Amino acid sequence: MSDAAAPAPLSDDEVRALDAHWRAANYLAVGQIYLLGNPLLTEPLRPEHVKPRLLGHWGTSPGLNLVHTHLNRVIRARDLDAMCVWGPGHGGPAVLANSWIEGSYTETYPDITRDAEGMGKLFKQFSFPGGVPSHVAPETPGSIHEGGELGYALSHAYGAAFDNPGLVVACVIGDGEAETGPLAASWHANKFLDPVHDGAVLPILHLNGYKIANPTVLARLSEDELDELLRGYGHDPVHVSGDDPLQVHQAMAAALDTALDRIAAFQHAARDGRDAGLPTEATEPGGADARETGGAGRRPRWPVIVLRTPKGWTGPATVDGLPVGGTWRSHQVPLSEVRTNPVHLRQLDEWLRSYRPQELFDAQGRPREQVLAYVPHGDRRLGSNPHTNGGLLLRELPVPDLDKYAAPVDRPGTTMHEPTHVLGELLEQVMADTAERRDFRLVGPDETASNRLQAVYGATGKAWQAKTLPVDENLDPHGRVMEILSEHTCQGWLEGYLLTGRHGLFSCYEAFVHIVDSMVNQHIKWLRTTRRLPWRRPLASLNYLLTSHVWRQDHNGFSHQDPGFIDHILNKAPEVVRVYLPPDVNTLLSVADHALRSRDYVNVIVAGKQPCFDWLDMDAARAHCARGAGIWDWAGTEDGQHEPDVVLACAGDVPTLEVMAAAQLVRRHLPQLAVRVVNVVDLARLLPKEEHPHGMSDAEYDALFTPDKPVIFAYHGYPWLIHRLAYRRRGHANLHVRGYKEIGTTTTPFDMVVRNDLDRYRLVMDVIDRVPGLSVTAAPVRQLMEDARLRHHDWIRINGTDLPEVAEWTWER
Amino acid sequence: MSDAAAPAPLSDDEVRALDAHWRAANYLAVGQIYLLGNPLLTEPLRPEHVKPRLLGHWGTSPGLNLVHTHLNRVIRARDLDAMCVWGPGHGGPAVLANSWIEGSYTETYPDITRDAEGMGKLFKQFSFPGGVPSHVAPETPGSIHEGGELGYALSHAYGAAFDNPGLVVACVIGDGEAETGPLAASWHANKFLDPVHDGAVLPILHLNGYKIANPTVLARLSEDELDELLRGYGHDPVHVSGDDPLQVHQAMAAALDTALDRIAAFQHAARDGRDAGLPTEATEPGGADARETGGAGRRPRWPVIVLRTPKGWTGPATVDGLPVGGTWRSHQVPLSEVRTNPVHLRQLDEWLRSYRPQELFDAQGRPREQVLAYVPHGDRRLGSNPHTNGGLLLRELPVPDLDKYAAPVDRPGTTMHEPTHVLGELLEQVMADTAERRDFRLVGPDETASNRLQAVYGATGKAWQAKTLPVDENLDPHGRVMEILSEHTCQGWLEGYLLTGRHGLFSCYEAFVHIVDSMVNQHIKWLRTTRRLPWRRPLASLNYLLTSHVWRQDHNGFSHQDPGFIDHILNKAPEVVRVYLPPDVNTLLSVADHALRSRDYVNVIVAGKQPCFDWLDMDAARAHCARGAGIWDWAGTEDGQHEPDVVLACAGDVPTLEVMAAAQLVRRHLPQLAVRVVNVVDLARLLPKEEHPHGMSDAEYDALFTPDKPVIFAYHGYPWLIHRLAYRRRGHANLHVRGYKEIGTTTTPFDMVVRNDLDRYRLVMDVIDRVPGLSVTAAPVRQLMEDARLRHHDWIRINGTDLPEVAEWTWER
Repeated sequence: MSDAAAPAPLSDDEVRALDAHWRAANYLAVGQIYLLGNPLLTEPLRPEHVKPRLLGHWGTSPGLNLVHTHLNRVIRARDLDAMCVWGPGHGGPAVLANSWIEGSYTETYPDITRDAEGMGKLFKQFSFPGGVPSHVAPETPGSIHEGGELGYALSHAYGAAFDNPGLVVACVIGDGEAETGPLAASWHANKFLDPVHDGAVLPILHLNGYKIANPTVLARLSEDELDELLRGYGHDPVHVSGDDPLQVHQAMAAALDTALDRIAAFQHAARDGRDAGLPTEATEPGGADARETGGAGRRPRWPVIVLRTPKGWTGPATVDGLPVGGTWRSHQVPLSEVRTNPVHLRQLDEWLRSYRPQELFDAQGRPREQVLAYVPHGDRRLGSNPHTNGGLLLRELPVPDLDKYAAPVDRPGTTMHEPTHVLGELLEQVMADTAERRDFRLVGPDETASNRLQAVYGATGKAWQAKTLPVDENLDPHGRVMEILSEHTCQGWLEGYLLTGRHGLFSCYEAFVHIVDSMVNQHIKWLRTTRRLPWRRPLASLNYLLTSHVWRQDHNGFSHQDPGFIDHILNKAPEVVRVYLPPDVNTLLSVADHALRSRDYVNVIVAGKQPCFDWLDMDAARAHCARGAGIWDWAGTEDGQHEPDVVLACAGDVPTLEVMAAAQLVRRHLPQLAVRVVNVVDLARLLPKEEHPHGMSDAEYDALFTPDKPVIFAYHGYPWLIHRLAYRRRGHANLHVRGYKEIGTTTTPFDMVVRNDLDRYRLVMDVIDRVPGLSVTAAPVRQLMEDARLRHHDWIRINGTDLPEVAEWTWER
Repeated sequence: MSDAAAPAPLSDDEVRALDAHWRAANYLAVGQIYLLGNPLLTEPLRPEHVKPRLLGHWGTSPGLNLVHTHLNRVIRARDLDAMCVWGPGHGGPAVLANSWIEGSYTETYPDITRDAEGMGKLFKQFSFPGGVPSHVAPETPGSIHEGGELGYALSHAYGAAFDNPGLVVACVIGDGEAETGPLAASWHANKFLDPVHDGAVLPILHLNGYKIANPTVLARLSEDELDELLRGYGHDPVHVSGDDPLQVHQAMAAALDTALDRIAAFQHAARDGRDAGLPTEATEPGGADARETGGAGRRPRWPVIVLRTPKGWTGPATVDGLPVGGTWRSHQVPLSEVRTNPVHLRQLDEWLRSYRPQELFDAQGRPREQVLAYVPHGDRRLGSNPHTNGGLLLRELPVPDLDKYAAPVDRPGTTMHEPTHVLGELLEQVMADTAERRDFRLVGPDETASNRLQAVYGATGKAWQAKTLPVDENLDPHGRVMEILSEHTCQGWLEGYLLTGRHGLFSCYEAFVHIVDSMVNQHIKWLRTTRRLPWRRPLASLNYLLTSHVWRQDHNGFSHQDPGFIDHILNKAPEVVRVYLPPDVNTLLSVADHALRSRDYVNVIVAGKQPCFDWLDMDAARAHCARGAGIWDWAGTEDGQHEPDVVLACAGDVPTLEVMAAAQLVRRHLPQLAVRVVNVVDLARLLPKEEHPHGMSDAEYDALFTPDKPVIFAYHGYPWLIHRLAYRRRGHANLHVRGYKEIGTTTTPFDMVVRNDLDRYRLVMDVIDRVPGLSVTAAPVRQLMEDARLRHHDWIRINGTDLPEVAEWTWER
């Protein structure tokens, strides 16, 4: 317990000034929740001064205000480059209040002036139609984190700190959020923080004791048990507790000084190669031989501040006879129906006046000098730090010339590559070219090598600050590949890294990216909103490489088979979301190049890691990807004069293989048929142009798919998604889609497509069934296809491998 | 460190017998991964004895086998009612091997006999086309947990233990899984485990040191730091480490004895009301006054076993000159290409023979007596415990008569109820009626009261074993409402509870249920598979009540607005998934009644908590819900003779309100128009009957929606979902859907529908735009509607409340 000696580093004047700032912020927070007029309380509070609908969250606000007030002090005292991630960001009034006091808000929104008129607008706009959200949000200066869906504060903070050696990222973690899985996992991020190249993360665990309606788990542990937990997470706790503001100001100032001194000492020691003489990881009995890493030394026990203050501190103690202050009843609006309840109106008046606003603001409503005494200047203000508007700092990513990595393709479908393996070579070069800048990271849940991207280890290793053993490979205290078996932590790290102006890629098993469905929702919402805020500068896109996909779960089977992330993503804001299904290595390179250079998107790239035929040379791949969808005339049998009899369309690597094989079967067995092969790389192309920036016009669509011919569409994922995208098209009634029907197990690759009716033989049968007039003349061919499927069934159950005619198939023309 | 004294509780004979069992299980695990023939190695191993495709996970298997072997011993020694959740369930070969040895497998699958022939089939079927999955799966006797998507083992174990006071649930947690968020959060579940009414959970943290390609975080902490972490989680660690089997057998036996003795003592003390004199939560300095709970006493520090053994233990130490045993290279198949690489073939032969199979199996391939010495009998076997086939134990849930809770409805749209509030009263009765049986639980992330279900506290409290304060309400050491701010933990608890034969309901904010997207995927996959396994008995459905939905996020705004869980669910196996959108209180009661009584489904019920008009009396509600979709003829203006001019359809409470208001506007302003109002409760009704068991025939669909009239469909969620469901229908080209377009913020309820073009005025404009010939004659009415929208815009920006004409609207006829 670090506060046992009750240090008091502040003079009385300092305490008074800090307390004035805190009271001002509290006043402004209450004002935002309640007031429609009379912002300075220059007259007695009347019902019409109060908002008709009372919305917002008071409970966490005084705690956030305390943290902000004290961060101001240390930023000024140390000329600190600092930002803060506000986990309990539903306490939006607090962060808005501080931003207004320090002037950041007015600089961002000149209409909200730092005077009585601006204060009135600040109050009215809060959670008001046409105003600002009730949470910390993209609209809030100085924020990279919406505090609504809890769990991601700490991983965002680490993401912001990586490769920002001069930055301190404070992170307020509410005791509600601390119960979530993603937050619980992210404590261990300190095993991945490089004290040399990364900045520091200072978690501030705010135990105000209650969630919406319940006590919190961590607040109801004994301090000893909580300390064990935090030390087990690799931290050294510093405690601040109390409900007497003057005492808490002293304790908080002392705690921040202690924490920042330790951080500085750790960083200094690591960067000098010395031992800081401070607490490090618990010593391992007889484990000295285990540490082989050069450079990292012992992992620091980074400080964590445990702040225990009452929920709704300084608000009404009781309302209607029930305890409110210090309980869950403070969570949102402690006093309700203030317009109609005179007792509540009087309580609100007293509550607001308890902050003594006339001491805090002058007659014009400007914050007085004492309030501003510790407010930092310029970019050092938490609401103005450029790291929180990462686009300001973003540099172009050096993506090498694709031709160096391109597979030569003399004849389609004769050579094979592992697409992600080749992409790994390109990423190796990106890593090498950013070795000094350190603004590119690759994240993944222990799957970089499994996803065949291991070439990157030629340029950098895997970040690792824990113990190493001689047998380990590619672990590197300064590495920029981030692997932890937590998709949540990977996602949170990458989001924090991108939001602070850097670049990255998340490689993930396709099925398990659903683990971050809700996280990507929030990131898309963030991007969608920032695109409407001119002062927010564009960010590098969040890029997913989804591999180890549904069709190739040979080791794992049904539980690892789910292509639905695409569906999830395509429900979201069209100006943000992009989905790519490159069918081979060169198209993957082209798509990845585009994604890595793009801004403000969420790009989902689905590509296999298994050997895959090369279909297009690099130039053709570039052209095809630029169009997003196109006719592969070399694969079809059109005469160029007439419309084809049937369109075989495909999206995804495995469906493309089956369509190519089906096209070949049709050519051999039904030579009279004019077949068109269409490949779709960019799925949103199928949407009408009014619904997505990449959408096609009807004329373009008809030119590819015809307005009236049967289209057999072999798709990577759930077949109905294609219908959902194309239902408005003229030819929709003729569209027949094959895809994943949720039928899976551990079996061979070809058996998977057979089970889901996506195989080449079934596609030929679909052609016969759909092209008018073929059913009789082509009956023998249909029988041939049936026979092939039966042959497959028999063969596989005996041999456990795919039919030789499938396993050894190549494209012939 | 509890193993410091190195206790040796086993005699030499006991060690030999346990080791024989373990070797047999290891042999059978390797055999499953590799062998196609020669199962007993009665002849030298030849290439054709080896599978052509080598799939599966060896690395974790010897550890799982060790745990199983030793659980067998303590089950027999103590006549323990025990089950095990195998977190590293990708080690399927291990659990299958044990199930075969003990006879459970042959009893479940008589074709796989417990002899050489059966062993051969056991080997061949593993991860083979037409065989069994490579993971622990529904097909595996004794399992309630697929080990593929990691993170849920411990919450499943707790779910199984709740309300099973006689049950011990062992839970193996791999050190990979331990890095995930859901697992990290679930450690704190011990604050919710009632030692009186619940069974025990014994976590066994298996540190084999590596994931797929990396060391694990927890394995690279010092033992002291790990102990701090586990004590911080509220556990008392017992360590077992080593790579010498004989020493590890002794240590593991001692650890299990210690752990089970402590568990028994805690339970005995709690059930007797005495102090067990064993380790409890860390003492709180000066905190004695804080504990007010009657009955719970001090929270026990439940044991956790930390098992450190090498990954791939007993497998090849090196392969091709690289270390394999004890490293990540053992994760899947340590020896590859065995058919073609003679060195690997010889290594495999040596590896298999190292277990001395002739000592373990007789000439007929039956396990020898020594191997079976500690195998439990009958239902005590881990593969046969009835708790793991919960349908065997499931009882009908007593759902009370709905008429007692029904809202009387004399005239539609004149009275209001909070639907979830009334449902809470019904659930209170369910809680009361199951007070003795204790087989119903309500789970939620701190939202039971926020979701207006607080009436349940009349019958039971919120489970809570941590410290309490006098101000707390409804906390109860024996409560059956489960609240923790972790959707993952809630979901995992409920899944475990249902899978062991009980009932429950998960109430959740609609937007944040996406947090468990991937978990529900796995549960649906589990149910889909068990439905095809006759020996698996039907389970109670997993019921979601999604409330605080997209349209009523007054306090929280954009981050809390997402109706996409429905889309996610409807991608999944149609025989399992059901989605209901009851438009009022009585339909909610009817739907909930159906869901609570149903089996083997995932039911998603979306219903508001805000006051909502009552539309149907209880009888009408029952009939409407039974049909799933129907014409509300009292709301339309059809003459019953002719088809209507237009159909106004709705699904969801808010869309229904807007459609009813729009219908009234049409009646007033366009009296010449024949309008039909259709309400859809059961969304899958829109699907073709071939695609979902609830799907309508085309004739039924046309009878509701007409084949050719304009249909204006007001839908709760993303509008394209309705198109995706209905694209095959004849009238699809005339279907015009309004819904949530991802436009949200903190604003008024009516402003939300206006922003998303779902409001009554827009719907009337849609009618005018879509009904042929109306555009000219109804232009003045259209202008009226435009004016109303403008009036709304002006009003709301000044007043911040909804237009009085909207706020005070009621249905008139």
